[in-house]
Amino acid sequence: MRRLSTQDQNFKQVFADLLAFETVSDPELLKTVDQIIADVRQHGDAHVLKLTQQFDRHPAHHFAELELTQEQLKTAFDQLDPEVRQALELAAERIREFHQAQKQEGWQYVDALGNTLGQKVTPLDRVGIYVPGGLASYPSSVLMNAIPAHVAGVPEIIMVVPAPNGQLNPLVLAAAYLASVDRVFTIGGAQAVAALAYGTETIPAVDKITGPGNRFVAAAKRAVFGQVGIDMIAGPSEILVYAEGENNPEWLAMDVLSQAEHDTVAQAIFISPDAELLDQVAAAIESHLASLPKADIARTSIENRGALLLVKDRQEAIELINQVAPEHLELCLDEAAAMSEQIRHAGAIFMGRFTPEAIGDYCAGPNHVLPTSGTARFSSPLGVYDFQKRSSLIMCTEQGVKTLARTADILAQKEDLDAHARSARYRY
Amino acid sequence: MRRLSTQDQNFKQVFADLLAFETVSDPELLKTVDQIIADVRQHGDAHVLKLTQQFDRHPAHHFAELELTQEQLKTAFDQLDPEVRQALELAAERIREFHQAQKQEGWQYVDALGNTLGQKVTPLDRVGIYVPGGLASYPSSVLMNAIPAHVAGVPEIIMVVPAPNGQLNPLVLAAAYLASVDRVFTIGGAQAVAALAYGTETIPAVDKITGPGNRFVAAAKRAVFGQVGIDMIAGPSEILVYAEGENNPEWLAMDVLSQAEHDTVAQAIFISPDAELLDQVAAAIESHLASLPKADIARTSIENRGALLLVKDRQEAIELINQVAPEHLELCLDEAAAMSEQIRHAGAIFMGRFTPEAIGDYCAGPNHVLPTSGTARFSSPLGVYDFQKRSSLIMCTEQGVKTLARTADILAQKEDLDAHARSARYRY
Repeated sequence: MRRLSTQDQNFKQVFADLLAFETVSDPELLKTVDQIIADVRQHGDAHVLKLTQQFDRHPAHHFAELELTQEQLKTAFDQLDPEVRQALELAAERIREFHQAQKQEGWQYVDALGNTLGQKVTPLDRVGIYVPGGLASYPSSVLMNAIPAHVAGVPEIIMVVPAPNGQLNPLVLAAAYLASVDRVFTIGGAQAVAALAYGTETIPAVDKITGPGNRFVAAAKRAVFGQVGIDMIAGPSEILVYAEGENNPEWLAMDVLSQAEHDTVAQAIFISPDAELLDQVAAAIESHLASLPKADIARTSIENRGALLLVKDRQEAIELINQVAPEHLELCLDEAAAMSEQIRHAGAIFMGRFTPEAIGDYCAGPNHVLPTSGTARFSSPLGVYDFQKRSSLIMCTEQGVKTLARTADILAQKEDLDAHARSARYRY
Repeated sequence: MRRLSTQDQNFKQVFADLLAFETVSDPELLKTVDQIIADVRQHGDAHVLKLTQQFDRHPAHHFAELELTQEQLKTAFDQLDPEVRQALELAAERIREFHQAQKQEGWQYVDALGNTLGQKVTPLDRVGIYVPGGLASYPSSVLMNAIPAHVAGVPEIIMVVPAPNGQLNPLVLAAAYLASVDRVFTIGGAQAVAALAYGTETIPAVDKITGPGNRFVAAAKRAVFGQVGIDMIAGPSEILVYAEGENNPEWLAMDVLSQAEHDTVAQAIFISPDAELLDQVAAAIESHLASLPKADIARTSIENRGALLLVKDRQEAIELINQVAPEHLELCLDEAAAMSEQIRHAGAIFMGRFTPEAIGDYCAGPNHVLPTSGTARFSSPLGVYDFQKRSSLIMCTEQGVKTLARTADILAQKEDLDAHARSARYRY
């Protein structure tokens, strides 16, 4: 695993190169995705079925076979191992509790002129959640997407999840039942995004599509943005662990590996002002790797994109963290809370030695859909606010409008908008 | 102007066709924009200067000439006609007051297990605001973009505004001064978006780009989305006016025209259950058009995309309004407030007969950058929330983590993520 120090000659450049990760915008991919979207818009169900047979090798002969019944979801839930069921239920309950605190309400006030101004908050009518299938089919993702939508008050949640060879993780279905998803279609890829965005005979068009997917899904989401809302376009998972003082290197090493095992292009960075701790964590990573089922993935990730970084002090670490804007940040030190106040950019901040990132993936309560690739500079975890939107409210009185109408009249004339000016002028 | 009734044979289809407005995704345009972005990333200032000379016929010989000094902004402000200055100041003050109510604060709570959970809210570090130049160079847009960013606490605001032939509207500069914009560059188009997204030798890279622009700007914003945040991609302006009961048809007609004069593809729809009022408004529109400086634009707009629509009753109107999800909605009736409660989708709702849309463009207080083309179904007016983002906070205690760690362990095993499971297991 790469060992860096901020004192290295070319540190700035080396560090910038390490962070750089750009999804190549592949013209062939974009062309393919555009064609899929156009075909789904034109041929609806039939084309979605055809592509699902082709790409997912799904055995369905009729489109109706691609929709799961509530009965199927309930059965999956009822057949859960009691321990797993309890774990899922606890996770759902905690996710709901946290997200309830995010719910926004409208407000109004009366200004000094007697006019009423305000903001109305309404949920979206219908949303689509994309749950990856196959290798990375996570029940936790179902909860993390569907529960915030429910808390927001969205009346209808449509889930899509590809089922390669017709196979599905029963836990994903159980989670859909637990999270009260309204309809589930076993479709994926750009065709699923197109179907959700524009609707087909069977699949109703939604207002927003959330959830991660492969590069076809990402390209399709970008293409339909505007027709529907989308959340962020997800990049590889990342963790940045900062540690100082008393720490168990075994724990820290496993936290680092917990992101590295996700993906060969995941990024795990460990930072400390303590050179000895860096040595210990490096050794512990090697030792853990020997027994990790996903050691190949994790090793590729840490060798290509990981780093152990020695800093002068905590302040220097804070500056680097704000530069990285990591998806997951662990602050393993006594003064974690104080340090977090100086962190401006991060998806989620895990504080103290008893807060491993892994609990955030499942059951801490906050969302695990987080901004990656430095986008925490300008974006937020998936949340209830993604499923609510606002309308401005303005109601003037006959007296109260006069000052405003005169002001609008003056400014509209300066902008050469005569109908605006005259429309305002009528009111004073 | 097209006259429709919900009782018409093909009403649903005709109305759907009327609303349909799709920006054609022109492959040539996308290719041009991609090339501009690539060239600006590679050649920086030099290429931005070259394109500004070429497209805007700007007389500058050196890049430095494309930056305005604070002195220039102040001079523009100081030279304002006192009446205009007062109008701008009142607008700025009201916009600031309204947006202050939107500012979000972080929160924390301690769960039943003793763990601390919360949400931290931070402003973006640096934002870019795009202000259209030439024909549609609006000082009000400067205020509407810059003030919410300031209220959010953004420390640095970079404005770009193209100056065709080197010409600028002094009011735009005065507004930039009033709104405390930090730096102003007289550039525009895809090259300005590229420069803001990736930075050049002179222009610092920003975290988010907001504000409307032409199709090159829209395409460039879509292309850099992910590298930076963007607001919505703006479509043509829209107004939907609903009226019943006592109303002055002259006023209503001018309100309709106030959007139609913006753009030949703007959409103005007037809805009422009162056939006589529809006749009166139609006549008033014709009569106003005779004296309107932008009559050609307005006439094209209302003939191609406008409609006067007769509905059975208020309830039917509500359903249609929610289908349209209009950018601007006027409810001109006594029970406007009650009716607004049934509106789920609209950018801004103007209630009562003394609240013309035009005051919302300038000085009511709420933002005039609003979701168009039905995107109010899933998006919000530009606001302080666009310039703030959230980070989740999680801090577990040694005791409090045990239940969570065990739950995460169980679920991680089910997802075949062994390092996650072991990282959690260490803590219990």
